[in-house]
Amino acid sequence: MVELRRRLAGEFLGSAFLVAAVVGSGIMASSLTRDVAVALLANTVATGAILVVLITIFGPVSGAHFNPAISLAFALRGELSWRDFRRYVAAQVAGAITGVAAAHLMFGRAVFQVSQTARTGPAQWFSEGVAAFGLALVILLGLRGERGSVAWLVGLYVSAGYWFTASTCFANPAVALARSLTDSFAGVRPIDLPGFLLAELVGTLLALAASSFILGPRRAEA
Amino acid sequence: MVELRRRLAGEFLGSAFLVAAVVGSGIMASSLTRDVAVALLANTVATGAILVVLITIFGPVSGAHFNPAISLAFALRGELSWRDFRRYVAAQVAGAITGVAAAHLMFGRAVFQVSQTARTGPAQWFSEGVAAFGLALVILLGLRGERGSVAWLVGLYVSAGYWFTASTCFANPAVALARSLTDSFAGVRPIDLPGFLLAELVGTLLALAASSFILGPRRAEA
Amino acid sequence: MVELRRRLAGEFLGSAFLVAAVVGSGIMASSLTRDVAVALLANTVATGAILVVLITIFGPVSGAHFNPAISLAFALRGELSWRDFRRYVAAQVAGAITGVAAAHLMFGRAVFQVSQTARTGPAQWFSEGVAAFGLALVILLGLRGERGSVAWLVGLYVSAGYWFTASTCFANPAVALARSLTDSFAGVRPIDLPGFLLAELVGTLLALAASSFILGPRRAEA
Amino acid sequence: MVELRRRLAGEFLGSAFLVAAVVGSGIMASSLTRDVAVALLANTVATGAILVVLITIFGPVSGAHFNPAISLAFALRGELSWRDFRRYVAAQVAGAITGVAAAHLMFGRAVFQVSQTARTGPAQWFSEGVAAFGLALVILLGLRGERGSVAWLVGLYVSAGYWFTASTCFANPAVALARSLTDSFAGVRPIDLPGFLLAELVGTLLALAASSFILGPRRAEA
Repeated sequence: MVELRRRLAGEFLGSAFLVAAVVGSGIMASSLTRDVAVALLANTVATGAILVVLITIFGPVSGAHFNPAISLAFALRGELSWRDFRRYVAAQVAGAITGVAAAHLMFGRAVFQVSQTARTGPAQWFSEGVAAFGLALVILLGLRGERGSVAWLVGLYVSAGYWFTASTCFANPAVALARSLTDSFAGVRPIDLPGFLLAELVGTLLALAASSFILGPRRAEA
Repeated sequence: MVELRRRLAGEFLGSAFLVAAVVGSGIMASSLTRDVAVALLANTVATGAILVVLITIFGPVSGAHFNPAISLAFALRGELSWRDFRRYVAAQVAGAITGVAAAHLMFGRAVFQVSQTARTGPAQWFSEGVAAFGLALVILLGLRGERGSVAWLVGLYVSAGYWFTASTCFANPAVALARSLTDSFAGVRPIDLPGFLLAELVGTLLALAASSFILGPRRAEA
Repeated sequence: MVELRRRLAGEFLGSAFLVAAVVGSGIMASSLTRDVAVALLANTVATGAILVVLITIFGPVSGAHFNPAISLAFALRGELSWRDFRRYVAAQVAGAITGVAAAHLMFGRAVFQVSQTARTGPAQWFSEGVAAFGLALVILLGLRGERGSVAWLVGLYVSAGYWFTASTCFANPAVALARSLTDSFAGVRPIDLPGFLLAELVGTLLALAASSFILGPRRAEA
Repeated sequence: MVELRRRLAGEFLGSAFLVAAVVGSGIMASSLTRDVAVALLANTVATGAILVVLITIFGPVSGAHFNPAISLAFALRGELSWRDFRRYVAAQVAGAITGVAAAHLMFGRAVFQVSQTARTGPAQWFSEGVAAFGLALVILLGLRGERGSVAWLVGLYVSAGYWFTASTCFANPAVALARSLTDSFAGVRPIDLPGFLLAELVGTLLALAASSFILGPRRAEA
């Protein structure tokens, strides 16, 4: 087992680079084109690529959750102590907020902003529930496969999710929180956060149940 | 062997996510751009990515067919009983229909619709035959390779097929059926379904013959 | 060793699907957008993806050359008999011509056409020499690596080559010949073929020399 | 250990193809579209793809640095002698300059040019520091993983970095120098080089420290 402080450094750095990539690529893309689909394609490429990279390099360090909902799933499965869960979440949130600030500094913007992008209503909540259900299912089932393949699965799943969910697949409470702090392409209004977080929680819990059913009594050796 | 009900759950969930990704990304893309090629690129990224993910995670559960034509090929090769074949097809069709409904709900649309998109005539049928021939050939030959590589092969093949076939490579009767229930970017008129299904059947049977010739008397150890 | 007729079937089918993907995706893309860069991106995705697929599935059958220049390199290294070389080239050319016809039929066009696209002059020839040099170098050095990785290397190399060479990286005499038979996005005038073929030959021979130098006296165990 | 002259040939050829791909794809893309985001997407695809290819094929030859900052990191870790470091840097710079000349010749342009693209100021320097920090961290942590995976990690990281850093992630002093010699999409003014080089140096040194902390006293067995 890697020392806790090294694991927390991994969660912090990974969450920071993830959010910097999501927010920074959104700023870059929307400044270069008026075609919103082209901007979202660029956002997709940057997010999918950085997820594969970050999960591959930090996976052996911390498990590379970068996501309180995923850490919760592992805690509920007994694979992360509740004490470490709280510290993981703190590192993820601190990293995500650092990432949004870094993205703003790289593009010469105000360090923290308040998003004006409305993302609310039943369709958005259902989307976000589906997004989180799929993400947790992919991780829980994918862990049975080859070492390292989960990084690719998550990068590809989120790349698809940016397009097939109306909420653009946040599926991550720490990232959602950080994205409320940017008034740019990737933002979400702070007032819309509770709906997103609740939907993500429900989706994750349903994925835990579905993965238990599919894996059967012999749980994965992950 | 995984229990049948778990395998059917895998076919159902995989088919649902596949169709949700195909239809949902089409709705998202066509709402964001007027450049149809950009919309099809986004549709391609989402479909290719989700195929790699779904086949990787459900492969060890059910074989990850998500496709009656592929299940038929395995039944004809004696690798799936005819009783299980019928249940697989039912699960695939139920999953695909659930997927189109989920996509519509995520985007706040009517749950079921009737597609107006005409896809008919000899060029379309020939396209769909080529698409299904190629897909079945890729799977039957690809199964001899490394564990897990078929997921990538199918995702990449369909990504190419979206562009090089005039029919945009449905190559899947369950998906074609579900796509007749959406009046959006990825739709196909119900009246055009029989031509598509027949072409897919012919293409799949020709691929069975071609793969037997290429693999020779020593059949693959898949 | 796989029987010769099965190997030739592999070269034929692989070359046919490769050219069908190159030409078909060019027709599709240019019919959907007026932005030539978007069309070339779609052409890139389709070509790169199908190359990974075809080389992976036909590699264990025939070596998956699909390319007279690459077959020549293997014949010169003594890894393909000159008798088999001639048959490989015949299968590749027949496959490539079948592929362009299939693409035209899928899109309801005349089966064979004469390209009007001029690609000539020193910059084009130098481009095509660089393209062929790089392709042969990637294959000759890449064969030392993990089984199956060459398929990815070739798909990625050609994806890059579509953009960084002014000739869009044909690097394949059989494909160049077939592309002279389509008056569409991916075409090349028949009169420009000799310059292309000569440049591809020179590039391939230089790559043989360069790979010998880099690999040193101990030749790769490929 | 591969002979030094073969290793230097690997660094030279790899750096040349890398810069030719970066500059050539920029020229091609900006000549085909007026949508700058589409051009940057094409530039991203070509650069990311060629990086995976070049690092895979030259990795077993020279380590595939192609980058003085990365060679410096290995020299500081005691994995490259200072004598070889100087020769590596010379080969990288010569290769990069050859690559920009080759790109210009392929597109029929003047062999060497002076870039007019301003990239200066604190936001650009901070961006470039983040870019180099991330690149070195990815390499130093990624080397602990499976053989060959670093090629993919670098290609994906730079693909993301083109979008999430305001400086488009040069992260390479030899490439930056060569890019000052092209007055095209990928250029940077010579007068802006010192700021870029200093930022890249600082980012690399910080990544050395961060990777030491994360890997802990037991250094990676790379």
